[in-house]
Amino acid sequence: RKESFKVDHFGFDVNLTFKQRYLVANQYWKKENGVILFYTGNEGDITWFCKNTGFMWDVAEELKAMLVFAEHRYYGESLPFGNLSFTDSKHLNYLTSEQALADFAILIESLKKNIPGARNSPVIAIGGSYGGMLAAWFRMKYPHIVIGALAASAPIWQFMDLVPCGKFFEIVTNDFKEVAPTVQKPSRWISEAFHLCNPLRSQTDIIVLKSWLAETWVNLAMVDYPYSSDFLMPLPAWPIKEVCKYLTDPNESDKVLIQNLSQAVNIYYNYSGEANCLNTSQTATSNLGIQGWSYQACTEMVMPICTTGISDMFEPQEWDFAAYSDQCFLEWGVRPRPLWIPTVFGGKNISSHSNIIFSNGALDPWYAGGVNENITDNLVSIVIPDGAHHLDLRARNIDDPQSVLFARAKEVEYMKKWIEQFNGHH
Amino acid sequence: RKESFKVDHFGFDVNLTFKQRYLVANQYWKKENGVILFYTGNEGDITWFCKNTGFMWDVAEELKAMLVFAEHRYYGESLPFGNLSFTDSKHLNYLTSEQALADFAILIESLKKNIPGARNSPVIAIGGSYGGMLAAWFRMKYPHIVIGALAASAPIWQFMDLVPCGKFFEIVTNDFKEVAPTVQKPSRWISEAFHLCNPLRSQTDIIVLKSWLAETWVNLAMVDYPYSSDFLMPLPAWPIKEVCKYLTDPNESDKVLIQNLSQAVNIYYNYSGEANCLNTSQTATSNLGIQGWSYQACTEMVMPICTTGISDMFEPQEWDFAAYSDQCFLEWGVRPRPLWIPTVFGGKNISSHSNIIFSNGALDPWYAGGVNENITDNLVSIVIPDGAHHLDLRARNIDDPQSVLFARAKEVEYMKKWIEQFNGHH
Repeated sequence: RKESFKVDHFGFDVNLTFKQRYLVANQYWKKENGVILFYTGNEGDITWFCKNTGFMWDVAEELKAMLVFAEHRYYGESLPFGNLSFTDSKHLNYLTSEQALADFAILIESLKKNIPGARNSPVIAIGGSYGGMLAAWFRMKYPHIVIGALAASAPIWQFMDLVPCGKFFEIVTNDFKEVAPTVQKPSRWISEAFHLCNPLRSQTDIIVLKSWLAETWVNLAMVDYPYSSDFLMPLPAWPIKEVCKYLTDPNESDKVLIQNLSQAVNIYYNYSGEANCLNTSQTATSNLGIQGWSYQACTEMVMPICTTGISDMFEPQEWDFAAYSDQCFLEWGVRPRPLWIPTVFGGKNISSHSNIIFSNGALDPWYAGGVNENITDNLVSIVIPDGAHHLDLRARNIDDPQSVLFARAKEVEYMKKWIEQFNGHH
Repeated sequence: RKESFKVDHFGFDVNLTFKQRYLVANQYWKKENGVILFYTGNEGDITWFCKNTGFMWDVAEELKAMLVFAEHRYYGESLPFGNLSFTDSKHLNYLTSEQALADFAILIESLKKNIPGARNSPVIAIGGSYGGMLAAWFRMKYPHIVIGALAASAPIWQFMDLVPCGKFFEIVTNDFKEVAPTVQKPSRWISEAFHLCNPLRSQTDIIVLKSWLAETWVNLAMVDYPYSSDFLMPLPAWPIKEVCKYLTDPNESDKVLIQNLSQAVNIYYNYSGEANCLNTSQTATSNLGIQGWSYQACTEMVMPICTTGISDMFEPQEWDFAAYSDQCFLEWGVRPRPLWIPTVFGGKNISSHSNIIFSNGALDPWYAGGVNENITDNLVSIVIPDGAHHLDLRARNIDDPQSVLFARAKEVEYMKKWIEQFNGHH
């Protein structure tokens, strides 16, 4: 379904509207004021998030819940200016988290008004990754609209100096170390050409290749799920273990090392066996909106990340905001504001809020920027030691580790408590 | 002092800055992390609000507080585009409550960083009228920045249908009834020319005259203070009583009635005796920014008000949003969004917030849209039965009624509690 929204909620000069897409499933819904689970869409096609958030479908019956999946503006089919949406900073001006939260608020008010029986329904926000940040922020800024939020793998503290910038890649490194202790500095092995769609032509291409490889290891750490899955890419169970089978001996010749590396990378990029060559310009599913996220990273979503080469397996790279900002200006004509997100959403000072679950998988590099300790009785953390990126939001699976089953049970328990609290007041 | 701010906190295309003015008094401040009382400036010159908020000066010593008065963008000297600020809807696009709150947030962060000893100071927001709304909303949206808020005479519920639109003028009527029970429908008396700077020429002029008179009664109700004061105008103590001395007998001839009315109105417009004639285009001090507020009323600040002619002393006038919106479009080229303020700030659903005092004077017409019952233990109401518009924020005076002394004492008590709570956590 689609609904019309103001392109600019925070100004009155631009009076345009656009169509925001959202999906509704209400077969399990208890008609009179039953709960609504509201997925706060993130940087991609909402149908893809819908398919990859089996948790909501799994609990719908127990909670007698209506499911709503709302697409984030500038992603999927919710493009404020159609094909022109990404042409320049003028058209991109309305791509911010605050605008997206306002869209969600207005959508919920509209659903409650228009769906018979939904008028007094409690609403719980659920999201993963950036969508998890949005779920948490939504509860913080619009507590009158959602009674609580499940923020899965939401690195709300990966800003400014709230957490050390090096932790992210340390986690990636640990994920590899655990299955293959001899894996060391794979980037060192890459000194010459690689099996690629577009052969390397310059020094720049090699830099691109290296960062493509680094991103590959990050993505593997994110989706190191205990069963065969297809989130960022189609992959086997515990893909890091599979990848590391090819990275056992760092003492081989360079040529053999490169061949091994190529096979390792193939696990990630070509598990289906359908790719003829590897394309360094894409590291994950095209359901993610690369352009939109690149712009967001260049404006609000400035998340400092660095490597030392000592506590991690990567080449050392400091966090260089000036260079980052220059690159953003070159690419999008805008300068990032790295202080804004902590200013507007509270940074580490969030204890006056309530009813938010922060869940994080310890295998997930984004764990580094997450909330991993209880802040108050109703601002709680759930850590899933053998979980990757928001494993808890995925559909139940026979190979789920005990820790994620426990996490999901806890999450449902909290949600039931919020609903009871809400019903007690109404 | 002045500080540079982004013109647009919610978008990255317009990268302009402007100078925001603020005033600081720190002679009573306890240097190491003493409290900061932060006045959230409203629709006027900040020096004028500073002079009319004696309460903050009166409590500064007891609380060992630094006082900061921040000017609201588009008022006083804080004009984002200088003389061009009000030229069209493009230049006015950044005049919203959300932008103003973001200015305040960033200003406080900057003060804490730059004033030695202020780094960990707790901050309390204080404001009256629209400034009171901002103080309350500031605590709701930025609880990590202010530990609490005193929202004096803040009609945060004078939106949509949250309160009956007729209550406002009923209060005005009651204020007059109490001192002169025979005053009835003064607007009826006004059927012909009046003593004015610009003589009446058309039917429209008579409509303007009538609404000018109605606004005069409203303003009198707002500033019906127990002592001689100069807020909207220089006035005697209990000005409504003075005005009503001329409005005793509705059975006089039309001519005598008009003469009496003219004398009554003179109490408000010419108490100083310096005006040669009365100007219907101005009803209060020029320290208020009429243009800015007119625009805000035509965008976010849509506050339905109506009269019945039965429960009040005015000619019946329904709340006609369509006409209101058309008038706004004519004047400013924008359409108001009457649902937005309740959507973004919670309407009546604000119980999950904390540490806000809503104080209201029962003589004040804006009492109608105020919070006049405790919502929770730390979202509290203080009603001042014989208080007009934010009397509690004014400097102490020998003629202060007992009720306002009690209110101020309570307010200080709450603030001390918040400070203690804050110090307990740090």
